[in-house]
Amino acid sequence: MDLAIIGLGRMGSNMARRLMRDGHRVVVHNRSPEPIKEMEQEGAVGAYTPASVVDRLAPPRVIWMMIPAGDPVDDMINKLLPLLSPGDVLIDGGNSNWKDSVRRAAAVSERGIHYLDVGTSGGIWGLEVGYCLMIGGEEAAFRIVEPAFKSLAPPDGYRLLGPSGAGHFAKMIHNGIEYGMLQAYAEGFEILESSPFEYDLAGLAALWNRGSVVRSWLLELAERAFKEDPHLESIRGYVEDSGEGRWTVFQAIDQDVPAPVLTLSLMTRFRSRQPDSFAAKVVAALRRQFGGHAVQPSGGE
Amino acid sequence: MDLAIIGLGRMGSNMARRLMRDGHRVVVHNRSPEPIKEMEQEGAVGAYTPASVVDRLAPPRVIWMMIPAGDPVDDMINKLLPLLSPGDVLIDGGNSNWKDSVRRAAAVSERGIHYLDVGTSGGIWGLEVGYCLMIGGEEAAFRIVEPAFKSLAPPDGYRLLGPSGAGHFAKMIHNGIEYGMLQAYAEGFEILESSPFEYDLAGLAALWNRGSVVRSWLLELAERAFKEDPHLESIRGYVEDSGEGRWTVFQAIDQDVPAPVLTLSLMTRFRSRQPDSFAAKVVAALRRQFGGHAVQPSGGE
Amino acid sequence: MDLAIIGLGRMGSNMARRLMRDGHRVVVHNRSPEPIKEMEQEGAVGAYTPASVVDRLAPPRVIWMMIPAGDPVDDMINKLLPLLSPGDVLIDGGNSNWKDSVRRAAAVSERGIHYLDVGTSGGIWGLEVGYCLMIGGEEAAFRIVEPAFKSLAPPDGYRLLGPSGAGHFAKMIHNGIEYGMLQAYAEGFEILESSPFEYDLAGLAALWNRGSVVRSWLLELAERAFKEDPHLESIRGYVEDSGEGRWTVFQAIDQDVPAPVLTLSLMTRFRSRQPDSFAAKVVAALRRQFGGHAVQPSGGE
Amino acid sequence: MDLAIIGLGRMGSNMARRLMRDGHRVVVHNRSPEPIKEMEQEGAVGAYTPASVVDRLAPPRVIWMMIPAGDPVDDMINKLLPLLSPGDVLIDGGNSNWKDSVRRAAAVSERGIHYLDVGTSGGIWGLEVGYCLMIGGEEAAFRIVEPAFKSLAPPDGYRLLGPSGAGHFAKMIHNGIEYGMLQAYAEGFEILESSPFEYDLAGLAALWNRGSVVRSWLLELAERAFKEDPHLESIRGYVEDSGEGRWTVFQAIDQDVPAPVLTLSLMTRFRSRQPDSFAAKVVAALRRQFGGHAVQPSGGE
Repeated sequence: MDLAIIGLGRMGSNMARRLMRDGHRVVVHNRSPEPIKEMEQEGAVGAYTPASVVDRLAPPRVIWMMIPAGDPVDDMINKLLPLLSPGDVLIDGGNSNWKDSVRRAAAVSERGIHYLDVGTSGGIWGLEVGYCLMIGGEEAAFRIVEPAFKSLAPPDGYRLLGPSGAGHFAKMIHNGIEYGMLQAYAEGFEILESSPFEYDLAGLAALWNRGSVVRSWLLELAERAFKEDPHLESIRGYVEDSGEGRWTVFQAIDQDVPAPVLTLSLMTRFRSRQPDSFAAKVVAALRRQFGGHAVQPSGGE
Repeated sequence: MDLAIIGLGRMGSNMARRLMRDGHRVVVHNRSPEPIKEMEQEGAVGAYTPASVVDRLAPPRVIWMMIPAGDPVDDMINKLLPLLSPGDVLIDGGNSNWKDSVRRAAAVSERGIHYLDVGTSGGIWGLEVGYCLMIGGEEAAFRIVEPAFKSLAPPDGYRLLGPSGAGHFAKMIHNGIEYGMLQAYAEGFEILESSPFEYDLAGLAALWNRGSVVRSWLLELAERAFKEDPHLESIRGYVEDSGEGRWTVFQAIDQDVPAPVLTLSLMTRFRSRQPDSFAAKVVAALRRQFGGHAVQPSGGE
Repeated sequence: MDLAIIGLGRMGSNMARRLMRDGHRVVVHNRSPEPIKEMEQEGAVGAYTPASVVDRLAPPRVIWMMIPAGDPVDDMINKLLPLLSPGDVLIDGGNSNWKDSVRRAAAVSERGIHYLDVGTSGGIWGLEVGYCLMIGGEEAAFRIVEPAFKSLAPPDGYRLLGPSGAGHFAKMIHNGIEYGMLQAYAEGFEILESSPFEYDLAGLAALWNRGSVVRSWLLELAERAFKEDPHLESIRGYVEDSGEGRWTVFQAIDQDVPAPVLTLSLMTRFRSRQPDSFAAKVVAALRRQFGGHAVQPSGGE
Repeated sequence: MDLAIIGLGRMGSNMARRLMRDGHRVVVHNRSPEPIKEMEQEGAVGAYTPASVVDRLAPPRVIWMMIPAGDPVDDMINKLLPLLSPGDVLIDGGNSNWKDSVRRAAAVSERGIHYLDVGTSGGIWGLEVGYCLMIGGEEAAFRIVEPAFKSLAPPDGYRLLGPSGAGHFAKMIHNGIEYGMLQAYAEGFEILESSPFEYDLAGLAALWNRGSVVRSWLLELAERAFKEDPHLESIRGYVEDSGEGRWTVFQAIDQDVPAPVLTLSLMTRFRSRQPDSFAAKVVAALRRQFGGHAVQPSGGE
């Protein structure tokens, strides 16, 4: 089928490649022109403005945005909307907040244009093994884009999960769970690393991936990571977080759901980025006040 | 090779079966005689006393205990030890505390007898796909038993991880991680289940298992569980815990390692077993004291 | 001084009483008329409409709202604003979100009217011991209302903390800390209650209030609560939460601050309100899948 | 009355002083002789060996140990026991594990000697305001020592809580709660400190101590601490922990009690002492593996 990819970051360009491999005709657009040129050389149809994206497709047009969440998505929709025709399909495959997707879908559908929110998982491995696609929106739009979904995903790796927002909601929870799993493995490996035994963590991860209850794809990655750097000496314990982890906690609280593990997995990331903890200073200061306990001077080790 | 399995619970008897399938001669013993008879009919050599276990094997004997952790293991060792010869190998494949295994290995080795602690994962699926074996002890003993390890485990699914205790320590951490992963998935599914969307959780689990970052064997089981009972209406949210989860937390604290996620995964299980929470009563009572906030009478809903 | 109290719930009416005790002239208004009549009998000046509140005060008018957070505050401001004169002071003494207070202060000040956000703590004890007043806004407005602050608060119990929003922000954090303290005491008392010792918790709370590190006003309330019901048998462990606890967690996350204790104190309240836990069902279901562990049927005990 | 204090650290010597102020005759002993000499000059009766402690008291002797928990207590008991007479009272006022106290009381009572375990709170303030004494053991022994308890404690600040162990158990939980309260305040102050407002934390703590729900002695200490160093710039966020916090968590787990707040308050202390977090390294490493997310090199900032 014909479709456009807007946003040629790592995810967008790899998705375009995976689509072209399966014979689809892919129009590509990006804010800066270089990635467009690159993709043209790989066989894509370059479009150097949003308007030319629309021009290079015939109705019903399928336009897939892979751009940063937030204002950039609203801006792009505002540019495209006047140019599109009823029956066209606009797809947000980025990490948007599901509430934004509900709002945008409603706004776009007033013009007779379809909107699909597609949570996309797979990271840098997606090009090779396929992307897991969590889709929210109308069945009719889903059917139009299904050939592309089929090419992008591994077998059975795409699914219409519900109305608009259901895709990004599922992706949000997916990432929340990911935070929890990563933290669970990480705590286990830290206890092993500081244990009385001198474990070969790569070997142990490899072992656990063969028949144990905790085997998973993330544990296969742990095997690789420990093979490259057995004691992770080359990197700092500094962990970023993206919106989805926070939104998962907000959502849990909005729904009155206790989610201690997902929440603490997020908050340990905050802590990982603090050179010192003001809260710990407060505790140290109060202990000195009541017990005369020694404190460590700032700057010392 | 020849070896004995002592303890014919679900794990022990399935392991005996898997060994016999590969042509090993398996002597079997159990506290109650019925399982022995059953296994005899499947081709095992029955031994109705610990002494007859020893009699039915030639040195170096390999005796694999699959019995409840704690006193039963010490009792069995005490029964076997006077009957064994230097060079024999005693294996504890149960869920023993790693410190007990260190202590027992030292005691047994004084008599010239080898001791291996083997953390065993795989549950009821082990018969079919093989058991993941985490092994602690001496290389020499490991080599003697390796043919059996090979039959029990999936390809590359057994490994000598270190000296005595290293096997059960690794199994302990494995279970701690398992608690954390289960809780991470569980929290995610609870938010989904009470979300504004009506997710088909079996379908979503199936989807996530195809290319997403959170794919795992546990998530495959979640797919099965939700297929059988889409909203888990047939079961209570009541979760037991075994020793390993607790020991993981104790170990973390002994090593000064923060393990918030593993710890909370354990403690939510405690909470799941409380019909009411005394702590919550205290909070409700104090809120009434200072704010005049209404409390719910006991017994009400 | 002269001022009006709008909202004669428990807090508002007690504050009016405390002000009148100190000789202030207090105009009172409420949505329903009965509390106005009641307060009139105690010496207040009744005002049965917002307009009459304004009429019964001379500029610069001081109007103190003690009404539910959210839309009611905006509605009242919208009613009052056209009637007020530059230099009048509008006070929100309720539990508003600090961001709303920042927004409202900006809107109100465009009309030349002062706005103070006053976080008010003290609960049902405030009438007797005074209210702790955390105040945000301009110094000029603060000075106008100071005589009333002095009457409402215990000695030194009021303070201008910063610009608009600083009062409600401080109150939000105050409540977050309160959640954490309550949960800390509650967990301690639960361990004591289920310990091998048969503690008299009222006696122990009383003891701790005499010289121990954990003495506090909340612990004095615990002493009272346990005296009334030594094992809290009359109430359920069911705990509501108000907005401030949630906002504290949102704020922590917005500021990248790890706040595990405040967050878990909130989430245990969510859990206290669940008759069963879906997350625990998921864990139980998965444990059955991999280990054949028994589950408890729903409805059973 | 007559009694001996063994162990003249800060706590022991201050307790001796407070006893002497009330006219008691206090025999003092310490491992090193200097503190004995010092206390002699203040009016105490010096005893340079355990034997001379016993000599300088008439039966029924009261000997109060204020020495480090663990082996030192057992060693001292072993030295004293052969010298004591039935009816004498041995007191452990240190931070012993309650299970040790149960064990020691049983062993000591076989010789007809009383044993009291006395949890002591008050820190460096105890000399001035009195020590809160949580006492476990027999009523008869308690009555013998009561005059000393009365002098040491503030009014009503001592209490027999139950049989042997009940005193140290209560002190353990007291400290667990203290950890939770400290962390609750600390998290609140961290959010305030990094908030959009420039709070004067000493002033805010002072304000909260006047009528608010969170007022407490610890908050009075916070007021002092922030007055001395408004942004705690002079100290590091490095917090030690003593045995009781850990034991509280162990006890909670042994009793199947969920204690998330007390546990996390302990574990944040562990984290405060880690220059880098191995767990965070693991998460960072895995995120790089699946998402190509950048990591920070070790040693960098």
